Parts: sequence; structure tokens; C-alpha cells
Amino acid sequence: MTRYDLALIGFGGVNRALAQLIAGRGDELAAELGFALRVVAISDLRAGSLVRADGIDLAPLLAGEPAFAGLPGGSADPRTEQVIRGVPCDIVAEATFTNPADGEPALSHVRWALEAGKHVCTTNKGPVALHGRALRRLAAEHGVSFECEGSVLSGTPVLRTARRLLAGLRISGVEGIMNGTSNYILGRLEDGVDFPEAVKEAQALGYAEADPTADVEGFDVQLKVMILANEVLGAGLRRDDVSVRGIARLTPADMRDAAARGLRWKLVGSAALREDGTVDARVAPVALPVEHPLASVSGPANAVSFHTDLLGAVTVSGPGAGRVETAYALLSDIIAIHQRHAVLEESLHG
Amino acid sequence: MTRYDLALIGFGGVNRALAQLIAGRGDELAAELGFALRVVAISDLRAGSLVRADGIDLAPLLAGEPAFAGLPGGSADPRTEQVIRGVPCDIVAEATFTNPADGEPALSHVRWALEAGKHVCTTNKGPVALHGRALRRLAAEHGVSFECEGSVLSGTPVLRTARRLLAGLRISGVEGIMNGTSNYILGRLEDGVDFPEAVKEAQALGYAEADPTADVEGFDVQLKVMILANEVLGAGLRRDDVSVRGIARLTPADMRDAAARGLRWKLVGSAALREDGTVDARVAPVALPVEHPLASVSGPANAVSFHTDLLGAVTVSGPGAGRVETAYALLSDIIAIHQRHAVLEESLHG
Repeated sequence: MTRYDLALIGFGGVNRALAQLIAGRGDELAAELGFALRVVAISDLRAGSLVRADGIDLAPLLAGEPAFAGLPGGSADPRTEQVIRGVPCDIVAEATFTNPADGEPALSHVRWALEAGKHVCTTNKGPVALHGRALRRLAAEHGVSFECEGSVLSGTPVLRTARRLLAGLRISGVEGIMNGTSNYILGRLEDGVDFPEAVKEAQALGYAEADPTADVEGFDVQLKVMILANEVLGAGLRRDDVSVRGIARLTPADMRDAAARGLRWKLVGSAALREDGTVDARVAPVALPVEHPLASVSGPANAVSFHTDLLGAVTVSGPGAGRVETAYALLSDIIAIHQRHAVLEESLHG
Repeated sequence: MTRYDLALIGFGGVNRALAQLIAGRGDELAAELGFALRVVAISDLRAGSLVRADGIDLAPLLAGEPAFAGLPGGSADPRTEQVIRGVPCDIVAEATFTNPADGEPALSHVRWALEAGKHVCTTNKGPVALHGRALRRLAAEHGVSFECEGSVLSGTPVLRTARRLLAGLRISGVEGIMNGTSNYILGRLEDGVDFPEAVKEAQALGYAEADPTADVEGFDVQLKVMILANEVLGAGLRRDDVSVRGIARLTPADMRDAAARGLRWKLVGSAALREDGTVDARVAPVALPVEHPLASVSGPANAVSFHTDLLGAVTVSGPGAGRVETAYALLSDIIAIHQRHAVLEESLHG
């Protein structure tokens, strides 16, 4: 059976959930998917680095906060570049963090891996939104894949729905509810809770971060709109090309007024092809008719609608965040890598 | 470039819409998809048969009701079996009709084609619901594909979402709104229109047939539940295994009562894995909480939710019927056939 050796870059919630999946049901997945997964390297800013060419025993690392120093092959030094470039492996699973201004450090991680001829799957928006086209070219030059399903709605398949299941259709626009935190807060405003209190609740529930700006001001959605516009509509948008307005000025009274008119306020990210082939992209609160496919997406749920010529709107909804959900996005990327690159060999050996 | 020669079985709305797509944008599709399509045979009970080994000029056939007798290669006799078995072609696009009791005549069409070593795409529920497993086995024996995305929600990708994009997940259940006619009628009941009047409206709009029984009594959804249960959950259900209750006894008063309790009546088809591995499958009106992902699916729209272990519910919504929408399902099947069978050759020649 085909086996892929993985390097996990970042060992926070997402890559630990992926490690948990591999440790807990690797055999079952292998039987279903036709390939086995083995982790041969981990690099994490806090835990350090761990390299074992014969495979890391993952289970002991999943209880409590791991520290790799002292383990065989371990070091307190994350040695990120050396791990990515130097350790022989097939796939780099990148799940660190990203600066929305320049996509770093995730961008460098992805570049190093592709330059080293390794497939990459990442859950980071930054590299995809800001440098997706260049990274795709780099991957092609090195004969490897660059997969990033988790950069939009965690494990809910959005990019792959557009690329694979809607092939042959003309997609003229994309719109979505792509931030669960702001969507949860809007729901609470509908319940009559005022904005500051709703933000506090979202923080208490773990939906919102200590600084909720990226979520409530629309900057998180802005990057996702860039990804959808560039990957699905073929646009080459930069951040300035996507106008952004957040939800911070909406009040319970606005919600009541909208409801009285059969409308519901949602933070909508959208990108639409104009007649001249350019793309209009924006993030803004929109009062949607309650019958609109996105109007009923509630709480932390997310959804994306594709506007197509032959089918009209096709909408995919599901979770937009979560450790396990995002880890599944990485697994789905690995499945895509397998399907693309292993078919030839499997056919020859099968 | 790879080219697929097609035989169209049935030349009603769906296959004519497919012919229109091929005639109108075949070159564009070829550039995007990497393969060309050519129709070499058509068989239709009314129009007769038309066989041209060098390709049929489709455009003249798309104006008005075609009659093939008198055309070069044409005959008033549909010669269905001879066309399917005898005319050299790569893919048979089956879009005739189906008897829900035994799946005929579509079932025989599919069998003949698979036995002749031809790939099959069909939009007919009957063969898939009643004999999906046997047909898949037959296809495997002959090294060809049996594709049937259009048998559930026309062109909205449901089977392929489950099989391809949710691979690796444990899917424990499926539920959906899979009949636009009954969903439209429920919407009209909500507007206060009584049942017989709502049916008449649906008939006038072309949503409901002269005999609306299959739609409003749930028998159409029953076949779709069988397809989802068998194809997605691996069940081997027969028709008797899916209990059926329709919407004919619901009234505008029921709708008002539900709304007052934050509920909305929907005709839900569902299949769920039980602890012992068997599958509970049913069609019945269900009063869903308005926040339920299926509660807001309105009018002729359809949707299917997959219940998964790692992502929770993932829902796909879009059209559930329509000539062009169903023709796209056939195109999406052809794309799937291409992806599965041409990758090896393309890799070698690419």
C-alpha cells in the first residue's frame, strides 16, 4: 500500500487533531482510502522539533502540552526551515499562524516545502489569499500539489466543490457567510443582546478571540473572499480590491426592523464577475430576504453559494471552524494529493 | 485530445438539453475539460433512431419535434437495443423513463450498455434505486463506469459530494428535501392556499404532473432515499424497507400551528445507520425547527444533509429538477468517467 510520510508544521489544535486522527484511526482510513499515513517530523514554536525517520509514535504526544527536547530525535529548537527543507517526507501539513499583511510565517513554510519538492496542505488563509497564484505556479514547477481547502470553511468542502463538482459550469459569482463568530453575534443581536455583551459571550464560548477585530470588522472574511475570487473566479485580487465593512454598528433595533420587513442581517462576503471580466468583491452586512439560501445560516454555521449558469445557486453549508473540522480539511487535502499523484502508480501496480 | 462518442437514449427534454450543451458550447467545454464530445447515435420512442458514425449534426434536431425517419442514418424505428448494443460508442447517456416497480425500460438500457462495455450515465432513479449494486458490479466486470448523479437532485452534486468530498468521514445519516413539487405545495399551504388548489397551481407551473401521486405521496422521495441509503450508507434496501407518508393530509391550519411553535412542515426523506449497522429509512412530513438547515429550503429548491462524525452536518442545496439542470448531471457524470478512465492515458501522453 502507498504510504505518505508527513511533516507537521505547527503542533497546535489543528495538527494535533490530525495526529489524533492518524493515531486513532489510521488503519481504518488506510483500508478505506488506500494509503497509509506516517508522521516523520513535527516542528512547533513551543514544543520544539521531533524527527524520526521510522515514524513518530503519536499517542504519547497527545496527552497534555508536549515538549520534544529529551525525546529521541527531539530538540527544544523548532528548526522549522531545516525540518521542512531537510527531512525526507512526502507531504508537509502546515497549520501554524499567519500575518494577514504578508502571510508570514506560513508563506515561507509553504515555499520551502514546495521548493523541496514536497506536497503541501495548509489551513492558513494568508499564503493562499495573498500568494495563491505564485504558490500554485511554484508547486507546478516542482511537480507537487498545493492544497488549501481548510483556508475557507475548515473541513466543509468549498474550493473542491467549485473545482471538481461544478466543472463545466460558468460560475459568475460566489457569496457566503464565512465567519462563525460574527454570525453568532448577529444571532445574539437578534435575541436582543447588545453588541458588546454579544462579543463577550462569543469570547466566553471560545468563538471570538481576545481581540475580536478580525472577526467583527470583516478582515477574516476579506481574506476568504480573496481566496474564493482568485481560486474560483480566476481573479487576481489584492487585499485593497476587497472593500470591507463589519458588523460593529448593528444593533438589536436594526435586527427588529429587518425582521419586520422579512429580512435578516448577515455579514456577507461576495465576489461577482462584472461584464468586463473584472471582479467586484466586498465584505459587508447585508439584509437578506429570509428565503435567501444564506439567511437561515445560524450561529457558528457557515455557507457558501456559487452562482452558476446551468444550476442557478448551489450552496454548501457546514462548520466554518474548529480543530477537528480543520484537521479534516488537511486529511481531505491529503486525499486529493493521493488521487492526483497516486492514480498512475496504482493503475500500474493494481 | 480525447474524444468520447455518445449514444443518447431518449431524446426528451434532458437529452435534448445535453445535445444543446454539446452543440452550443462543445468547444468551450473541450478547452476547459480536456475532452471533446460527439453524438453518434440517438434512440427515442417517438423520434426513432439516428446513427452517424462520423457524428450527428445536432443543431437541426433541436428546433421543434424531431423525426429521424428520412434523415441519412435515420429510421422511424427506435431500435433501442441495437443502438445500445451495436453502435460503437464510448458512453451511453440514458434519459428515458422508468417504472418505479421494476425500473424498466431504463434498467434494460443500462444493462445492455454495460454488457457491451460502454460507460453509462443515467438520470433515471429506478435502475439505481432498485438495482444499483448489481449494475455497479456489472460495470466493474466490464471495466466501465456506471454514473447516476442526476438520479437524486438533478445537477446538484449529492452522491459525488458524499463519495469524493466527504471521504474518510463516517457518515451516519442522510436527510433531505428531495421533491420540489411537494415542497412548493407546502409553501403554498403556508400561504393559506388549501391542498387541492396548491396542487392545481403546481400543475399549472409545470412542477406537478397530471397525476401528482408520486410527488405528494412521497414515492418519488422513497426512491431517492433508497439511492442515498444504498450508495452513501452502504445499505441494501428494497422499496418495502422505506416507510412512506406523504403530505396530502396537511392543511393551512397545520402550517399556522407549526409556525406558532417555531416549526415548519417539510417532506423529509431520511436514512440513518442504527447501532446494529442496519439502516432506518423513511419518508414523512416532519415539523422542523426553523433553525434546522433544511427548514429554509423553499419552493422548488432541494437540499441534502449528510451527518458526519468530524464535521457534523454538511448540507448541499440547489435545484432538484429541470431539463438543463438534469442535463448538467449527465455532463458531470461524463466528467467523472473521463477523470476515472482517462487519467492513465493522459498521463502517458501528456
